[in-house]
Amino acid sequence: MTITMAELALALDARLWGDGAQKVTGAAEAGQAVDGQVSLATTPAYAERLAPGSIAIVAEGMDPDAYGLKAAVLVQRPRVAMASLTRAFDRGLELAPGIHPTAVIDPSAEIGDGAAIGPFVVIGARVRIGSGAQIASHVSIGRDTVIGRDLLAHPGARIAHEVTIGDRVIVHPGCSIGADGFSFVTPEKSGVEEIRETLGERRAIREQHWTRIHSLGGVEIGDDVEIGANTTIDRGTIRATRVGRGTKIDNQVQVGHNCIIGEDVMLCGLVGIAGSARIGNRVVLGGQVGVSDNIFVGDDVIAGGATKIFTNAPAGRVLLGSPAVKMETHVEAQKNIRRLPRLYAQVAELRETVKKLMEKRPDDGSNTKDRSEG
Amino acid sequence: MTITMAELALALDARLWGDGAQKVTGAAEAGQAVDGQVSLATTPAYAERLAPGSIAIVAEGMDPDAYGLKAAVLVQRPRVAMASLTRAFDRGLELAPGIHPTAVIDPSAEIGDGAAIGPFVVIGARVRIGSGAQIASHVSIGRDTVIGRDLLAHPGARIAHEVTIGDRVIVHPGCSIGADGFSFVTPEKSGVEEIRETLGERRAIREQHWTRIHSLGGVEIGDDVEIGANTTIDRGTIRATRVGRGTKIDNQVQVGHNCIIGEDVMLCGLVGIAGSARIGNRVVLGGQVGVSDNIFVGDDVIAGGATKIFTNAPAGRVLLGSPAVKMETHVEAQKNIRRLPRLYAQVAELRETVKKLMEKRPDDGSNTKDRSEG
Amino acid sequence: MTITMAELALALDARLWGDGAQKVTGAAEAGQAVDGQVSLATTPAYAERLAPGSIAIVAEGMDPDAYGLKAAVLVQRPRVAMASLTRAFDRGLELAPGIHPTAVIDPSAEIGDGAAIGPFVVIGARVRIGSGAQIASHVSIGRDTVIGRDLLAHPGARIAHEVTIGDRVIVHPGCSIGADGFSFVTPEKSGVEEIRETLGERRAIREQHWTRIHSLGGVEIGDDVEIGANTTIDRGTIRATRVGRGTKIDNQVQVGHNCIIGEDVMLCGLVGIAGSARIGNRVVLGGQVGVSDNIFVGDDVIAGGATKIFTNAPAGRVLLGSPAVKMETHVEAQKNIRRLPRLYAQVAELRETVKKLMEKRPDDGSNTKDRSEG
Repeated sequence: MTITMAELALALDARLWGDGAQKVTGAAEAGQAVDGQVSLATTPAYAERLAPGSIAIVAEGMDPDAYGLKAAVLVQRPRVAMASLTRAFDRGLELAPGIHPTAVIDPSAEIGDGAAIGPFVVIGARVRIGSGAQIASHVSIGRDTVIGRDLLAHPGARIAHEVTIGDRVIVHPGCSIGADGFSFVTPEKSGVEEIRETLGERRAIREQHWTRIHSLGGVEIGDDVEIGANTTIDRGTIRATRVGRGTKIDNQVQVGHNCIIGEDVMLCGLVGIAGSARIGNRVVLGGQVGVSDNIFVGDDVIAGGATKIFTNAPAGRVLLGSPAVKMETHVEAQKNIRRLPRLYAQVAELRETVKKLMEKRPDDGSNTKDRSEG
Repeated sequence: MTITMAELALALDARLWGDGAQKVTGAAEAGQAVDGQVSLATTPAYAERLAPGSIAIVAEGMDPDAYGLKAAVLVQRPRVAMASLTRAFDRGLELAPGIHPTAVIDPSAEIGDGAAIGPFVVIGARVRIGSGAQIASHVSIGRDTVIGRDLLAHPGARIAHEVTIGDRVIVHPGCSIGADGFSFVTPEKSGVEEIRETLGERRAIREQHWTRIHSLGGVEIGDDVEIGANTTIDRGTIRATRVGRGTKIDNQVQVGHNCIIGEDVMLCGLVGIAGSARIGNRVVLGGQVGVSDNIFVGDDVIAGGATKIFTNAPAGRVLLGSPAVKMETHVEAQKNIRRLPRLYAQVAELRETVKKLMEKRPDDGSNTKDRSEG
Repeated sequence: MTITMAELALALDARLWGDGAQKVTGAAEAGQAVDGQVSLATTPAYAERLAPGSIAIVAEGMDPDAYGLKAAVLVQRPRVAMASLTRAFDRGLELAPGIHPTAVIDPSAEIGDGAAIGPFVVIGARVRIGSGAQIASHVSIGRDTVIGRDLLAHPGARIAHEVTIGDRVIVHPGCSIGADGFSFVTPEKSGVEEIRETLGERRAIREQHWTRIHSLGGVEIGDDVEIGANTTIDRGTIRATRVGRGTKIDNQVQVGHNCIIGEDVMLCGLVGIAGSARIGNRVVLGGQVGVSDNIFVGDDVIAGGATKIFTNAPAGRVLLGSPAVKMETHVEAQKNIRRLPRLYAQVAELRETVKKLMEKRPDDGSNTKDRSEG
């Protein structure tokens, strides 16, 4: 794709500086652009790497003249501009239109117009997929699953049976939507149940086996959801596990059975959410965050990386640590732990001083009294 | 499947109340049941959502009459009933019987009676699989692997070469059984080895490359094991990595090479067990628990979510925290950390008081002596 | 493969003891060897299990005569010997040479000599692969990707489009190289951006959706890299995500978009590295370690299991804990936390003693003064 800098400025809703007729074929990091590529240099540090005579995207407030540019697009909010820019130049998978002859599609499945379906795709009985689906190689979609329009399924994504997926959903390689929940029961109370009741004390340990609870519920994924590579979202037991509209899920996230994830949520890499937890709207969980089963995380909660949430979290709270506490409590606790060596020294010194104070008062009547009582 | 409430009560070994002839076609959460579905309402909170005239499963001790039900099954231990109920109504993958024409099966492989093998399955040389195998699309099974009867392999599961798997094993999408262990050595001592010996001190840092130790051992999986989506169990170096009978493994669990996992163990999502660790029988590890390499976790240990086990754990212990300690020690430590601000205030006040006590005793001979010595 | 003990000693660059003509067909753990297998017994504990009359590999300094062996190979550094030994006996996947008829290879792709490509492999347009590639079943390689010689790709590995991979790279089942980065922006500032600026305080919460930043950069993988099962390495935004020569990555590791990983690095299972982090050369990160986005971890850093690195780490540092601190600081902090109950008792006792000291001095002028002021 080739556009002009003037067209780029228009597309990014940004201000043009210099020669608007300069041609743009792609984008690159400042200092790495080759002929035709527009350099991204929205901070002074990056701008220092710009070659004189090149073309660049810089932030409003920066001076294109100072870098000797031929043309520049000045953006207000660089990351927002990045969204438009990268969308414009993304060539994607370039799947061939139509259905690859090796794909195995059940005759009862309904595929919408404009689909591109790659080699070795398997689509089960009674599946319904909306228009514009792009389904790469090796994807499998189980029986009775219903998917909206403009699905983008990367190679090897696994969508199970009886799953419902909205419009414009993106699923990445190796993700699993709708595998069985991890739900077992022992004929008698298990050690875990006992500990929950007694808070740690265990009575006689009994040898017993795990009996499987099957997963009859499916998974419901809202519109505009994105699901990362090798992420797993298990099906519910009786009703569906749910992921709300607009939620973005990174790679290797685990969402347990029966969970209800809100809208516009962001779950970063390696997050684990145990069964039946409920996550509010616009929640952001950093990498490797954990959420215990059956708890509730309120709207707009933000948890930093590696936070472990064991108990309900009220709306709007910013959490850190393991166990998770309010950000400021965590920062204070860390500071208090770092200062402990000084505290130990102070207390040792105090003990010494007080000991001397006690020793040096043999004439104190009350001390004498203590001795006679002791 | 349609049964009567009387038949359901019989199947669940539970007590019938009301009209046993009512028909059941499925199950649903209380408040979401449609015609023919039996509602699950084993707590009063759920029972409040029951529609009058509906049919339900409730817990013994609850009063079906109070909810205006037509019929009810009263169960002693609701989660045990759930196991029977969900098994009865689970339609599963509905794989077509027989071997799909696209499957690539080595002529030397032996497949037992009653197999259902889906599209694009690959089965290697000399593989032996027992009767009743259900193998969904895109599964691969490497050469010389031996599997018992009633295997259920979900789409895209990866079973490598020279693996041994028992009867009634379930493997979920994208799991990997028998990939190479992560085992490397440097020609001279590596930084890690040095630190283990010196407890933190590092001598000169040498530039050197990692040399691979290959994995000749396979993996041995016992009967009735379940392995979650995208879970990975690496093959052993010289002998097999082992997972004992009845053990259940959730999604995205990592079991390193040479590990020995006991029987009836439960490993929750995102658990990581490093190489050569041994896990006893009936151990339960919560989500995101970590176990260091080469250590031993005794029978019946229970570790809460995100516990990190760096040292051997005796049988029966309940662990929490990072590093893992006894549950009560962890709870006490957390309380002690929370109380630190008060402790700091108390010590500051004490210092002030003692300082005053010292200052106010100019006539103290020992103080005078201190001064003259100072 | 059958060799003699004399040949084995030669291959391992080690010393032969006893009958060099003894035949070796494989290797086994001490106590589990069957006829023809050489036992590994490089510690006295293992050597005790050796059967008299058997053949073994022992460590220099041990006495083969004491165990009644027929022949032994005495090695200087057992783990180094393991590398040679296991390589010699590894039969690997035994892929059939040539290209399986079911593989779908774009006519514009170039495959080097000596390739073995399994069933249901998909290779995209303009892909170039060097000589000696072994590509197992179900692997997909996206358009315009370039791979060096001697690739070993295990079943179901996912290599995306526009990825560059060096020589002798090994990719394990289900890994994903080059999926889209997890990069989103909100039209206005998001809660996360606000917290980063205000360190915890949140102003009005606005409802807004995530806009996608596409990933135009690919991934560049150096020579001799190994990538574990179900590991994910995302593509960069504008330039490539990079993994340096000789780096070894275990299972279920997540490497975010734009990361730069150095050479000879070792990343253990379940490590998560957030976007744009830079990891130096020879860094070793233990299992479940986390690294925050945009930070720098210097050369030769070693982080123990479950360490969470939130800030830049200088070269050579040994890290532990969450948040990560120097190993000795962490050990000290843990000790200080364990000792807190004693500290609380000491302070309580001090308070009691000082209180008594204060009470027992009614004749102290300053105390009298305090009272009159109070």
